[in-house]
Amino acid sequence: MLTICNRTDLLKGVNTVSKAVSNKTTSPILECILLDAEGATLTLLGNDLELGIETKIEAVVKKEGCIAVNARIFSEIIRRLPDEDIKIEVDDTYTITIECARSKFNIAGQSGDDFPRLPQMQTKQQIILSQGTFKDMIHNTIFSTAPEDSGRPILTGELMDIRDGYLYLVAVDGYRISMRRTQVNCSEEFKVTVPGKALNEIHKILENEEDSLMTVNFTGKHVIFQMNDTTVLTRLLEGEFLQYERNLNMEYKSKVTINKKELLDSVDRAALISRENKNSSPIRLQIEKDKMIITSNAENGSAYEEVALGLEGEELAIAFNPRYYMDALKAIEEETISILFSSSLSPCIIQDPDAEDYKYFILPIRLHS
Amino acid sequence: MLTICNRTDLLKGVNTVSKAVSNKTTSPILECILLDAEGATLTLLGNDLELGIETKIEAVVKKEGCIAVNARIFSEIIRRLPDEDIKIEVDDTYTITIECARSKFNIAGQSGDDFPRLPQMQTKQQIILSQGTFKDMIHNTIFSTAPEDSGRPILTGELMDIRDGYLYLVAVDGYRISMRRTQVNCSEEFKVTVPGKALNEIHKILENEEDSLMTVNFTGKHVIFQMNDTTVLTRLLEGEFLQYERNLNMEYKSKVTINKKELLDSVDRAALISRENKNSSPIRLQIEKDKMIITSNAENGSAYEEVALGLEGEELAIAFNPRYYMDALKAIEEETISILFSSSLSPCIIQDPDAEDYKYFILPIRLHS
Repeated sequence: MLTICNRTDLLKGVNTVSKAVSNKTTSPILECILLDAEGATLTLLGNDLELGIETKIEAVVKKEGCIAVNARIFSEIIRRLPDEDIKIEVDDTYTITIECARSKFNIAGQSGDDFPRLPQMQTKQQIILSQGTFKDMIHNTIFSTAPEDSGRPILTGELMDIRDGYLYLVAVDGYRISMRRTQVNCSEEFKVTVPGKALNEIHKILENEEDSLMTVNFTGKHVIFQMNDTTVLTRLLEGEFLQYERNLNMEYKSKVTINKKELLDSVDRAALISRENKNSSPIRLQIEKDKMIITSNAENGSAYEEVALGLEGEELAIAFNPRYYMDALKAIEEETISILFSSSLSPCIIQDPDAEDYKYFILPIRLHS
Repeated sequence: MLTICNRTDLLKGVNTVSKAVSNKTTSPILECILLDAEGATLTLLGNDLELGIETKIEAVVKKEGCIAVNARIFSEIIRRLPDEDIKIEVDDTYTITIECARSKFNIAGQSGDDFPRLPQMQTKQQIILSQGTFKDMIHNTIFSTAPEDSGRPILTGELMDIRDGYLYLVAVDGYRISMRRTQVNCSEEFKVTVPGKALNEIHKILENEEDSLMTVNFTGKHVIFQMNDTTVLTRLLEGEFLQYERNLNMEYKSKVTINKKELLDSVDRAALISRENKNSSPIRLQIEKDKMIITSNAENGSAYEEVALGLEGEELAIAFNPRYYMDALKAIEEETISILFSSSLSPCIIQDPDAEDYKYFILPIRLHS
């Protein structure tokens, strides 16, 4: 193999596919990325067998071929080379020579034939989305997936629920539900659960622009995200996800309209005191006609906060884990939000006052007093 | 105690004095900062008994008094309060009430009388310096102090050597010497060793500006740095520092003039390969008439780099720990540097080509081949 490519393109490609390289593997080939030179293209591939990322860059290919190279050392080298053309040559012993300006590296590679390629699969359904929108949807829900050690593997992923002309993206950790939705053009209804790790990596690859589109192909056991020159393939999680719809459409007795930033800042301050307590004691919300009083108490002190609000319905007092409140409030960009309550012992839902494009469902903590 | 002060001033003061608060102490009072309201001033003090930092801010004092408050919780609260006046009130039970806008905190304090004040001492010598210059001098030498666990406590500090109208700041870890100097107006000659930790904290407090001045007072067992409204007092390290002068004025046979950035980038790349080897294998410098060839070899590869140079004297080959080279090169702002060599087994000195305001002395590694 002998190819010449632009250093900036190569670095971007290497950084993209490296996100799928395992750093916990005992198999040296899975610590590699594959370089495959063919036609006028250098294809890069990272694949930890759960998640695969492939990207293509323009290259002058003088001799076609492929090689697997340790992802970490290769990316460290490319990152440090000056911004000039890079020549990559591979000999019969899988030794890779990288030349650029007055620098020359020799590093040991492995046969590209031993590297696991992406499986070829039939698409069953397809949706087309804005990259920027999907990026935001991931960012604003993924914090409430269950941790890997939760004993509930299905909840470590997020549900992609396609129905009624919408994609609903839903994360549940047993104490809260975070949902974002966006309109999509798809007549079929179906749901799949995508691993949280894959969504985290896709989030890093997606562009911020609303205008950049992506295609999502569903094959039954996998989902394939296609954006620009990059393909991300991930296995789906198997099992039954939580039936979340009923929770998000509960009856309520009190509807609060409140400034998001003021509430977030006040909860953040009150949480300082509760955080001192190792049992992560709750903050208490007392909802009155014209204000919310937020208090917390711990051995070493107490906090008292007031935030103005608009209230439809009954006054009440309720307590929450402040972290869940802060996670949800940080994920919301709007200035004004609604919060729905039905009783001191029932969950609340934080949502946008007009549409229902996001909902954050949070279980309360029972107050002792 | 009852005082009202500006939140921005208070936050800056708390951040400054918190740098002297111990986070490894078993004594709760040393986890505190002292607030002392008197006249029209609120004085803040942090003191871990090795290092003390005191700063003064303007305040309206309605009732004089002092209180010790947990540094971490107090700074977290002040940081999160809105930018309005803050009222701090202390009652007879040492309960501190902090009020700002619609927030109110109660936290437990401790008697201010139990907090260790800074000792009062007689100044023996004094120098006046630019804050910006001293900040740079610390930053560009402190990386070569010996680590805490090196078994050589005196080398965990830096020598302040005042002689010949200069302050020399010197750090030595047994493999290298880093020296920066600046002119000072002082007729006496003396040297003290300041703990590295104290210099690290002073570095964070010093302003960048060349024009801002600071006073350094030497009392025998302590040194006191005075800048703006802040006083830093530190114990000195006891013992004999290395006699470094002879090392920095060695005879040389080869003098290389070279572009600093090109050399740094090349060493950085070559170090990538040597770093792969767990024994941190050396990089080899081969100095020829018109170029330096930098190479490294490890199990998994090799690197070859060329950098143009000007040479006075003999060609030679020598090997170094690349990290020591990179630390020194990163500390130098100038575009062009000189490097002095006397043999393959002797140290080199990296210095400015004209003046001798900085010198980096580095021991070589013996080459096996």
